[in-house]
Amino acid sequence: MSQLTGNLLVGQSGGPTAVINASVCGVVQEAFKHSCIQGIYGGMNGILGMLNEEIFDFRKEDPASIEGLKFTPAAGLGTCRYKLDFKKKAEKAAKDMDRLFEVFKAHNIRYFFYAGGNDSQDSSHKIHLESVKRGWEMRVIGVPKTIDNDLPHTDHTPGYGSVIKYVSATVMEVGFDVGSMATDDGSCCIIEVMGRSAGWIAAGAALAQRGNPDNPPQIILLPEIPFEREKFIEKVKSVVARNKYCIVVCGEGIRYPDGREVGADYTKLDDFGHPALAGASTKLKEIIEKDMNLKTRTVLLGYAQRAAAHYGSATDAEESHACGVAATKAAVSGISGQMVKIVRTGSKPYKWTTGLQPLEDIANVEHFLPKDWIAADGFGVTERFIEYAAPLIEGQTKVPEVSGLPGYVTLAKHKLAKVLPPR
Amino acid sequence: MSQLTGNLLVGQSGGPTAVINASVCGVVQEAFKHSCIQGIYGGMNGILGMLNEEIFDFRKEDPASIEGLKFTPAAGLGTCRYKLDFKKKAEKAAKDMDRLFEVFKAHNIRYFFYAGGNDSQDSSHKIHLESVKRGWEMRVIGVPKTIDNDLPHTDHTPGYGSVIKYVSATVMEVGFDVGSMATDDGSCCIIEVMGRSAGWIAAGAALAQRGNPDNPPQIILLPEIPFEREKFIEKVKSVVARNKYCIVVCGEGIRYPDGREVGADYTKLDDFGHPALAGASTKLKEIIEKDMNLKTRTVLLGYAQRAAAHYGSATDAEESHACGVAATKAAVSGISGQMVKIVRTGSKPYKWTTGLQPLEDIANVEHFLPKDWIAADGFGVTERFIEYAAPLIEGQTKVPEVSGLPGYVTLAKHKLAKVLPPR
Repeated sequence: MSQLTGNLLVGQSGGPTAVINASVCGVVQEAFKHSCIQGIYGGMNGILGMLNEEIFDFRKEDPASIEGLKFTPAAGLGTCRYKLDFKKKAEKAAKDMDRLFEVFKAHNIRYFFYAGGNDSQDSSHKIHLESVKRGWEMRVIGVPKTIDNDLPHTDHTPGYGSVIKYVSATVMEVGFDVGSMATDDGSCCIIEVMGRSAGWIAAGAALAQRGNPDNPPQIILLPEIPFEREKFIEKVKSVVARNKYCIVVCGEGIRYPDGREVGADYTKLDDFGHPALAGASTKLKEIIEKDMNLKTRTVLLGYAQRAAAHYGSATDAEESHACGVAATKAAVSGISGQMVKIVRTGSKPYKWTTGLQPLEDIANVEHFLPKDWIAADGFGVTERFIEYAAPLIEGQTKVPEVSGLPGYVTLAKHKLAKVLPPR
Repeated sequence: MSQLTGNLLVGQSGGPTAVINASVCGVVQEAFKHSCIQGIYGGMNGILGMLNEEIFDFRKEDPASIEGLKFTPAAGLGTCRYKLDFKKKAEKAAKDMDRLFEVFKAHNIRYFFYAGGNDSQDSSHKIHLESVKRGWEMRVIGVPKTIDNDLPHTDHTPGYGSVIKYVSATVMEVGFDVGSMATDDGSCCIIEVMGRSAGWIAAGAALAQRGNPDNPPQIILLPEIPFEREKFIEKVKSVVARNKYCIVVCGEGIRYPDGREVGADYTKLDDFGHPALAGASTKLKEIIEKDMNLKTRTVLLGYAQRAAAHYGSATDAEESHACGVAATKAAVSGISGQMVKIVRTGSKPYKWTTGLQPLEDIANVEHFLPKDWIAADGFGVTERFIEYAAPLIEGQTKVPEVSGLPGYVTLAKHKLAKVLPPR
């Protein structure tokens, strides 16, 4: 493959994570090493910003700020939930695609990296196909990102290790708290975590048990398992009878056997047609208090869980950075239309490397928790899951402290002059 | 004062904190240094366990476990919400008091320490008065504890620094997250924190601004300031117009001008007659979505905030330990009927020491946020508050990591043989 000289554009898409910036850091730091890459640009708010020619210059950033992306949460470049939706909005999507290529050509973008989840890998795949079709030589590499861990073909996704480290520590701490207050009256606490259809995050909370099933969370409710009220109440009763208290972790997207989400509000749909989730934990609290008259409290971690870089996994941050480095290396070597993936090459000790997978295998495919990793009664996980998840939370990201708070960085974002008329 | 030889009993009461165990550690480690203190005992679940003669022996604990209390959250001894309520339940309270002194005498308790908040200091005060009245020589010292920071006479309470450190970091992180997703549609996130009547925790979130009022939290709702819907919506609108997003921190106990709590459920009262709080954040979300049609999410930190020792304040942990040490020293020197307090002796650099205050000055007095520490528009704090709070979050508690999670300790609790008939 001949050397391709031109500019690089990297963007972030979808919900942020504690380590998505580490991937961008990897892309950019590796790019500095290759003379074929001239401009190193960041797209602001993903495709949405790129359409508006909102692009900034990484070569003008302080290298310390770029390095600081390794431990800074959220999307340092800005992100979006904007889809090139050729199915439902074909005309608009076609117009957007034309505009994107106008922007790519105007700024001689020859390397395109997009860090995101399912929808974002779909966008990358479409952009790759278009670049081939239009004869615009540009190397497109998807960088995996999602706390949900629901991308196929990669052992796990960057962002997952950090979210389950934080959630597990929180479950341990809430368990210590509620357990220390447990008297004969009993009590229950529901901790609601993210996960609309795949229960990876809720499952990850099982690490808090540290091998003892009496340790919290004594009950995990996974979206993969239909929620049956009576069975659930029986389980809570048995846990409280044994421990005097019960910690329940529930994925936000748990459903009744008829398919309705326990906490969903079907009157509100987002741009992708997903219903808004008002609160499974609130509903579970109502159920427990009504059926058992048991004092119940809730914790709704919400956005806090995916942004909790103050307790990020060092393993996760390292892997995320490596995914970014691998993306740039692959593109420079002539590869396009692939997503970087994490490949597990050993257990005890855990070993990993990066690999590549065609984007068409990734786009819009959801990876669910394997059935044999779920406990027989449906309220927890098996040892196989624990073996899988345990290495992902090892080590704690080092974050400098400034005035008692995390010293996160903010990029200066020196913008490129716009050369196109506004869209 | 003559030397008093006998046994020591320490208990914990009320809601746990990230550092209440550090105070117990201080009491116990100091006790080991004084030969007049023979048995060093812990009461399980506070007064409730003491009434049932549930007492364990600290001399049989591994010293490493006692040392580990410095960074272990929740109540390592167990806690309770049990009140000696001579006003509403005089007969029961009198019976309980008789029983307590039976237990004290049966186990020759001559040193009594109780770590807790307002209600617990009231219990300690009553026990002190009774010991004098009954001629049972016993030195009673209250150890301050509460995330709520609402005890009078002490500069602040152990537990407060850690909760506002964690809450501020969380607000920063959620702010980075929501800010990075902010596009023209705008968005809002409400973070609900503890604080039924005093807004100390919500106010503490202001540290996340790090001197820039455009940084989150752009709005703080304090229980001290009546909640006015129209004024609040105007404020959210102006913040979103300026920043495209808005982070609101609200104390759980915010009230309408007529006194009703925004998130309270008056059909459920706890043992102290306080209404249960179902969720101010849920109500605020409804209000914003109805009045502004603005996408709004919530975070309910609940018990997680007071147990978050994985991100505890080193200053707070050190002060908490010192309060325990000071309690034992005071008692050994002959003092009784006092609470240890923290005295600020210098700013820039921050300096502190411990002091003593009669328990009768503390019991059931709530300390509110001074009016001139609240911003003129009621939606934030003044620089004087920041100067007060900033030193309290300095430093991060060092917690050993075990398999990627905090290596918290659990006491073995070798129980004393019961010598009394069951009550």
